[in-house]
Amino acid sequence: MSGGRGWGVGVPVQAHPALAAAASAALDAYTVATTEHDRAALAAIVADGADGTPTMRIDVLVEDAILGALARHPVNVLTEETGWVDHGSAVTLVMDPVDGSANAAAGVPLSAFSAAVAVDGVFTEALTVWLDTGRSWWAGPGVPSSLRTSGRRDLAGAAVSLLRPHPANPPAAAAWWEVARRAARVRILSTSCLEGALVAQGATDAFADAATDTHRLVDLAASVVLAESAGGAVRDVFGRAVELDTDLTKRWSGIVAATPDLADELAEVLSTAYRAAS
Amino acid sequence: MSGGRGWGVGVPVQAHPALAAAASAALDAYTVATTEHDRAALAAIVADGADGTPTMRIDVLVEDAILGALARHPVNVLTEETGWVDHGSAVTLVMDPVDGSANAAAGVPLSAFSAAVAVDGVFTEALTVWLDTGRSWWAGPGVPSSLRTSGRRDLAGAAVSLLRPHPANPPAAAAWWEVARRAARVRILSTSCLEGALVAQGATDAFADAATDTHRLVDLAASVVLAESAGGAVRDVFGRAVELDTDLTKRWSGIVAATPDLADELAEVLSTAYRAAS
Repeated sequence: MSGGRGWGVGVPVQAHPALAAAASAALDAYTVATTEHDRAALAAIVADGADGTPTMRIDVLVEDAILGALARHPVNVLTEETGWVDHGSAVTLVMDPVDGSANAAAGVPLSAFSAAVAVDGVFTEALTVWLDTGRSWWAGPGVPSSLRTSGRRDLAGAAVSLLRPHPANPPAAAAWWEVARRAARVRILSTSCLEGALVAQGATDAFADAATDTHRLVDLAASVVLAESAGGAVRDVFGRAVELDTDLTKRWSGIVAATPDLADELAEVLSTAYRAAS
Repeated sequence: MSGGRGWGVGVPVQAHPALAAAASAALDAYTVATTEHDRAALAAIVADGADGTPTMRIDVLVEDAILGALARHPVNVLTEETGWVDHGSAVTLVMDPVDGSANAAAGVPLSAFSAAVAVDGVFTEALTVWLDTGRSWWAGPGVPSSLRTSGRRDLAGAAVSLLRPHPANPPAAAAWWEVARRAARVRILSTSCLEGALVAQGATDAFADAATDTHRLVDLAASVVLAESAGGAVRDVFGRAVELDTDLTKRWSGIVAATPDLADELAEVLSTAYRAAS
């Protein structure tokens, strides 16, 4: 009986060349950045990103390395800090260079490079690489996925990862608490893409932003491909489609779940609790 | 400027021979167990532990391997499943073979071997090894610690790890929520010993059981040595001493913090909120 845990190691040979180049550059830059800089330097706010949130030095160091590596790959890029770079290609990389920046800067070893490939606007391939270990989760066109979700269909008994609760936002806090009340286990790893990969791998049953509209497309794009290739589903708490959009200020309350049924139940529980407390 | 993240690799050469033998056996047994068994087999409840909680197969596989390796080291042992093994030695190993068993069984790569050495009842040395990566945190007598906490003294602005909230326990839920309200960041990694090591390393500011009395001595013993060697402190929310006790049914609500001030503030905030909601 196989105990295979579902992840790969490093950048898979089948990956799109631009995706592979970006991931390799991210791994190298992360290693250099965390060797050469201390916590305070990595966490220093050095800019405002294209997504409207403050940018840490570690984000810039890794994103700049990636964009350098992509000079030889003229695809379009949508990324956290730089935003939308249009090269007139049919191929777009939607990318979070360092998902879990606060973890990465502080030394909590849970952060990831994560990106999806969209062809003519449709997500076809994705790769998430855990920067601290090189473990990776990939799914792409024409290759049967090695990923398989847990298959769980009900929230009762489920292990759910959540973004941290926000007590200052009572409707969202009520939604968070309702999931915590119903789930068998609750985790907050503070790295959406890695938590999405763990759903695709079957290690956890679901991951959700409890109605705080914190998720940007770069936090969800890879999970759409990885989870769907593995039998899972991605939803937004309020029913908005999670699809390619070059406006990085757009937000979602994403749900990544082991099955469509579980995704629907989470959306229903979260939106109902949110509205009841509004 | 060094970006050294504070952890070591594998079992340090300075470790007490019994501690080193136990850690090496745990690493080997974990690798074999997660290779040979699938999730359901690893998570199967196969016994009731000496601590009064159900025992998963992965706990038994790793603990049995450790006890086998300790046959040549006649120290006393206090461990999760077997309980208290008295060999009449001045030396006692207080040990959690697999901290974060649910993570380990499910494939969430956050679990640890963790043990402290007590000599004549006093904790002198500890080692926590992240089983998924081999990274380790050690502190022992006569050796300046390489660990240093963040030094943070106030809960406002702090990054705090918590055990999951328990909505069915209103006083404890109120205590949990009060810390979430005041802290800058909240994580739930579901592995107390690893979360304690991250406090000792300075990656997070504190870790706490929010007044649920879930912690056993094996969940806290290593953190006492690691945190104190690094400038931090360990407390119980209700003021009970965290010290060697061979009764494994005893429980604490542990706090591991970057400084004595932060530990005291967390104990005050948690116990006050708990009592106000009781």
